[in-house]
Amino acid sequence: MTPPLPGYASHFGVANIPFGIASSDSHPSPTSATRFEDNVIFLDRLDNVFEGIQDLSDTVLAQPSLNAFAALPRAVHQAVRERLQSIMKKDNTLKALPPGAVEQIGAVTMHLPVETGDFTDMSCSLHHGQNASEAMTGKRSSPPAFFHMPIGYAGRCSSLDISGTPVERPLGQHWTGKPGESEIAFGPCKKMDYELELAAVIGKPLARKERVTASNAEAHIFGYVLMNDWSARDIQALEMIPLGPLNGKNAGTTLSAWVVTADALAPFRVASPPRTRDVVSYLAASGNDALDIKLEVRVSPPGVEASQGKVMCKSNTSWMYWTLDQCIAHQAIGGCGLRTADLIATGTISGEGAEEHGCLLEFMKQGEQPPRGYLEDGETVTLSGYCSEGVGFGECVATLTPAKELDV
Amino acid sequence: MTPPLPGYASHFGVANIPFGIASSDSHPSPTSATRFEDNVIFLDRLDNVFEGIQDLSDTVLAQPSLNAFAALPRAVHQAVRERLQSIMKKDNTLKALPPGAVEQIGAVTMHLPVETGDFTDMSCSLHHGQNASEAMTGKRSSPPAFFHMPIGYAGRCSSLDISGTPVERPLGQHWTGKPGESEIAFGPCKKMDYELELAAVIGKPLARKERVTASNAEAHIFGYVLMNDWSARDIQALEMIPLGPLNGKNAGTTLSAWVVTADALAPFRVASPPRTRDVVSYLAASGNDALDIKLEVRVSPPGVEASQGKVMCKSNTSWMYWTLDQCIAHQAIGGCGLRTADLIATGTISGEGAEEHGCLLEFMKQGEQPPRGYLEDGETVTLSGYCSEGVGFGECVATLTPAKELDV
Repeated sequence: MTPPLPGYASHFGVANIPFGIASSDSHPSPTSATRFEDNVIFLDRLDNVFEGIQDLSDTVLAQPSLNAFAALPRAVHQAVRERLQSIMKKDNTLKALPPGAVEQIGAVTMHLPVETGDFTDMSCSLHHGQNASEAMTGKRSSPPAFFHMPIGYAGRCSSLDISGTPVERPLGQHWTGKPGESEIAFGPCKKMDYELELAAVIGKPLARKERVTASNAEAHIFGYVLMNDWSARDIQALEMIPLGPLNGKNAGTTLSAWVVTADALAPFRVASPPRTRDVVSYLAASGNDALDIKLEVRVSPPGVEASQGKVMCKSNTSWMYWTLDQCIAHQAIGGCGLRTADLIATGTISGEGAEEHGCLLEFMKQGEQPPRGYLEDGETVTLSGYCSEGVGFGECVATLTPAKELDV
Repeated sequence: MTPPLPGYASHFGVANIPFGIASSDSHPSPTSATRFEDNVIFLDRLDNVFEGIQDLSDTVLAQPSLNAFAALPRAVHQAVRERLQSIMKKDNTLKALPPGAVEQIGAVTMHLPVETGDFTDMSCSLHHGQNASEAMTGKRSSPPAFFHMPIGYAGRCSSLDISGTPVERPLGQHWTGKPGESEIAFGPCKKMDYELELAAVIGKPLARKERVTASNAEAHIFGYVLMNDWSARDIQALEMIPLGPLNGKNAGTTLSAWVVTADALAPFRVASPPRTRDVVSYLAASGNDALDIKLEVRVSPPGVEASQGKVMCKSNTSWMYWTLDQCIAHQAIGGCGLRTADLIATGTISGEGAEEHGCLLEFMKQGEQPPRGYLEDGETVTLSGYCSEGVGFGECVATLTPAKELDV
């Protein structure tokens, strides 16, 4: 387990009360749970606590995903969270909960919090785009649409993984050296990278052919998770012209276990950064659409605790050019609708400085010596994110395992 | 309804026996069905017919999608199809089926056949790629990876539509003229296009981190559907650098209603066309991996029957450079697995000639006068595909409706 960052006693204080899906030896069926400090509380064992909450049926909290709960009105999420907060605020109340309702985090297995039907990964960070462009082309340029709208691609849902699941180095065809100037070979990826991201989990759906503006998009957000969008850079570089990344992003996409609610993050909404040009109507956000979440990436070699890994990056979601509210509005503008449990992610979140690179690619500037190469087998990547004392995401962690040779 | 092509009495003879999801006034819950000529037979009303088929439980055929059925071993699909064929082969047997088991196609509503978790659209046709390249750049070039592997992008699952569902012209930001040289505007798409495609529906899943070679991929195919991958060309042209298409493909993706099984198409497997270079091991197919399906696109204006529409294209799946077997092997090579009901599509299927353009973009060659412009509101696009007397897909049809102005 990654300990909280210095100055923070816990990511999971009474101001957080996130939701996840957990199981344990004594609670073998995965169901919804919350976390308070190092305690995991199974919500299906707390029926009396939620009595009288309108629209909350008995079965919702016993499901193996949060989909049914996330689809309920925001007022239900608020009511459930407030009842739980009122328990946590009282001394010794946890001990008064029914037998088997509370377990220590170390005794619990976490599962994917939602069953996602569509996952989109956007490109919100100007700094990431320009750093990556400089690494790949020598020039700090941005795609033609960048300042007009968040661009992005559809990701794969079958390879979404819960934090802790190892990611296997993928096989694929890739450039052996500089794209376009080297050979194309088949075998294990040679340029495995992480990407530091945040994703919104959709709660309230939006019907097909309906739209939502950025100023109203937050009403559709159930909560947020950290995401490591593992990227096979050499595979990606070959395949992405002109249809974008596919297998380069499909080895695994790691999600943090606890969905931090939109309500828990509401106090950390801040003004979005100034933009270089006006946005069109559907992207206009009303006031505080950015989030102030401090982010960190650590990489640790085999045998070293994740918490002792080298800090590769410190970043912040508020530095992004586009916000997730705007990404949601953009996703919906073409008429595809939004479904509960859809994931809409930010893309790599970077700052301007070398200590603020959200992925390794950004270090690989032509003619410069990078501080390190791409990921080695056995290395563990740990993302963490936090807002304040008691409000954080915990960790999003995964170890890179060696490629399995083609055996078919 | 589109009538079968000249020379074919029906797409749905005894050699076909496809599977779909249907409902009607007297059978209001959508369940699995088959089609024989113009009869739709609800499979949940035929319990005795399937008695003794191992692994086929009573509930599977009563589900509102084919997912549970498609996930069963191929031997079950074969046994069910053979029992149905034995009924159809006898005169008057349909009349002997239980009351309510048979309805005329005109009395039936078709629904999406499967609930899809991941949909990938590949680029299999060299001719399409080169025609599109000539239209966009003036040069007949291919992407750097084209001759090495099928390239593709992940599509959106929430906007998959059953044949007959209108597609609404999307709103979006787009180039007003030549990409990169014109203004960027927001409003209804001005360049709405269709794409003639075939998609494989995955049956037997492949576990995460497992691989399958092209020579073994067919074992994972439950069947096939036609697909119209509606494309907003002006939106797509702006957004797709460098992450590929997103909203330009999200207004709707139309599927034909009947999944034609891998067994029904087995007699129409033919040798794949010669390739310009050797393929790496996982893409090596054993013999007949191409399919000989004759394809057609018709476009009809408002008030004109779809069947009377102008034939815009005649094509054939056997002309593709890459086959769906190879696409499946390529999809899986990175370790993402395959899930039952995944869709893997071919991309636009074109030939060399002007009568063989599978989408309108291919007609828009610089300096030439195209035979027509992009789609107008109210026009209906009808794809059809057939192999022989009695074995076809029926139609994949949808009408383009006007854009709805932004009302939020």
